[in-house]
Amino acid sequence: MKTSLLNEIPSTIEWKDNTIIILDQTLLPLETKYIHINTIEAMWDAIKRLAIRGAGALSVGAAYGIYFGIERFEGSKEDFFVEFDKKVEYIRSCRPTAVKLFKVCDRMTKVAYTNSDKSVGKIKEILLDEAHKILDTCLEKSKKVGEYGLELMKNNMTILTHCNAGSYAGVRYGSALAPIYLAREKGWNIRLFADETRPLLQGARLTTHEMMRIEVDVTLICDNMAGHIMKKEKIDAIFVGCDRMVANGDFANKIGTYGLAVMAKHHNIPFYTFINSESIDFETETGEGIPIEERPAEEVTEGFGTRTAPNGVKVCNPAFDVTPNNLLTGIVTEKGIIYPPFKEELAKKCLMIGDE
Amino acid sequence: MKTSLLNEIPSTIEWKDNTIIILDQTLLPLETKYIHINTIEAMWDAIKRLAIRGAGALSVGAAYGIYFGIERFEGSKEDFFVEFDKKVEYIRSCRPTAVKLFKVCDRMTKVAYTNSDKSVGKIKEILLDEAHKILDTCLEKSKKVGEYGLELMKNNMTILTHCNAGSYAGVRYGSALAPIYLAREKGWNIRLFADETRPLLQGARLTTHEMMRIEVDVTLICDNMAGHIMKKEKIDAIFVGCDRMVANGDFANKIGTYGLAVMAKHHNIPFYTFINSESIDFETETGEGIPIEERPAEEVTEGFGTRTAPNGVKVCNPAFDVTPNNLLTGIVTEKGIIYPPFKEELAKKCLMIGDE
Repeated sequence: MKTSLLNEIPSTIEWKDNTIIILDQTLLPLETKYIHINTIEAMWDAIKRLAIRGAGALSVGAAYGIYFGIERFEGSKEDFFVEFDKKVEYIRSCRPTAVKLFKVCDRMTKVAYTNSDKSVGKIKEILLDEAHKILDTCLEKSKKVGEYGLELMKNNMTILTHCNAGSYAGVRYGSALAPIYLAREKGWNIRLFADETRPLLQGARLTTHEMMRIEVDVTLICDNMAGHIMKKEKIDAIFVGCDRMVANGDFANKIGTYGLAVMAKHHNIPFYTFINSESIDFETETGEGIPIEERPAEEVTEGFGTRTAPNGVKVCNPAFDVTPNNLLTGIVTEKGIIYPPFKEELAKKCLMIGDE
Repeated sequence: MKTSLLNEIPSTIEWKDNTIIILDQTLLPLETKYIHINTIEAMWDAIKRLAIRGAGALSVGAAYGIYFGIERFEGSKEDFFVEFDKKVEYIRSCRPTAVKLFKVCDRMTKVAYTNSDKSVGKIKEILLDEAHKILDTCLEKSKKVGEYGLELMKNNMTILTHCNAGSYAGVRYGSALAPIYLAREKGWNIRLFADETRPLLQGARLTTHEMMRIEVDVTLICDNMAGHIMKKEKIDAIFVGCDRMVANGDFANKIGTYGLAVMAKHHNIPFYTFINSESIDFETETGEGIPIEERPAEEVTEGFGTRTAPNGVKVCNPAFDVTPNNLLTGIVTEKGIIYPPFKEELAKKCLMIGDE
């Protein structure tokens, strides 16, 4: 694939002509539609109805949303701050459990008040700059994770992945799929097996779609086929994302990741997780300390509009599982690839006081 | 659970008042409806549209179907055999790939012609007896598998299973679920985790349904949750069915079985497969010789009546995988439980010349 072709594919979230352009994820995989947003109300709505999702993209969207909220304000500085606070509260209300969203709201608030001695026009400029910075940092870290991941790759290799840890969960590159974008930019051919990832099918709906866009030779499988594929096909590596990592390298990721890691070990296949080091929780010692969210039974029994199990059946539907560090080959971060002993190496490379 | 309550539950296929009563499997899990069949045409239709399925139940149905076809015949013996041959061909035509169906047609034909010196009325009687024998043998072997399996069980144990190897795939007891029926007859409490079994969801649709009928504490999980459950819950054993076993004990079963076996080994959980020894293929040496059926992509991409993957996506959809004998704890047959070395023990216990 030509680099130019890859560049022609818009990012999941992009700033262009004073507008944010986002890929509407609610229509995937059957329709690829971009929405142009330049009001706070439209951004609130896009975040609320999950047209934009994933911690990275969501925080970028929120920052621009706050800017749109005050962009056209005319009036005194005092009135400006009243208005600004209202807009921040409004954005904060759209996903009450998204921690990253609150962090961005706090960051934008801090920037505005720190510059309260400047003119309203200047504060607006500074807020727009801050949103750009959030986008750039997100993009840069995602690319950096990809660059380190690329060190693990070669032309014509075969990778297996789970869920969606790609562009659609981040900004341009995502995490576990980030090196595949860079490999395609180099013109390498990559073969990918994508687990469909029950119950919500992020692999079937999103991973296949974004990988087909960049002409990766992607094959969709059901989750229970992964073992058979590891035995029958030459799988060079398994790349997965990471929802939460603790101090010793144990990590939570989409349900099914742990089983894959066990099977990878049995087949001697290298197993890597990809993470922005900001998301590492050094306060928690081991994976035992990670609470597992239990989700509604209907996701399993009425997956796609059809009831497929008896009424009243008992269901277990954990959103995540925990993979212990001894099943991991390495952890790919924007600060480099971490190898065992994970606890010591993570602390050395990723736990930096005052690091942003 | 009282034995009487268990006995009140009709079998998947049963003979009563000159009629065959079958559970219509096409309406499960949302409706439990029994169909009364007493013509060959109705039986042909029930087999064709999969209202009755599984090699065992299907062959029983075919035998009674042939009997219904000639039950009301009046005329000369010569005409009787013309009619009989026609009816056998008719039944043979309804599932052109079901080997067990052909075997039953051959068996009924042999019985009819061996007794051609007898009166038409007597031959009809003999054919009905033969159908009864086929049903009884099927039931008896299924119960025998269950009795041996029961030796592996105890009160309050927790089992994990895959796909549907129960009553709905056989006659009354099935194979892997047979010991659970017998355990319930003893009043034991059994906890069962049932993999939903993508893409066709036999676990979600059938296993949960038949286990809820006999008040087993069954919990439905997605296939990718099995590893997490093995780690978090005290799973005492894994029981699965078997589609085809070869001379050394390697066996093909529903896709996902192999991955479960790998995970069971990692967690030191005993892993058993259940099989009627008739189905062991002693002509094939190892699992390498078992061809794997590849099924249509739409089962994966349009599983629930909704398209859930991009148009044109490449899909891999093997119906089965092969589990090597070294991941097996034991093989439960109607002739006893086989332990390693499997090749020698299978030959000793299950390969009997002239054995029916």
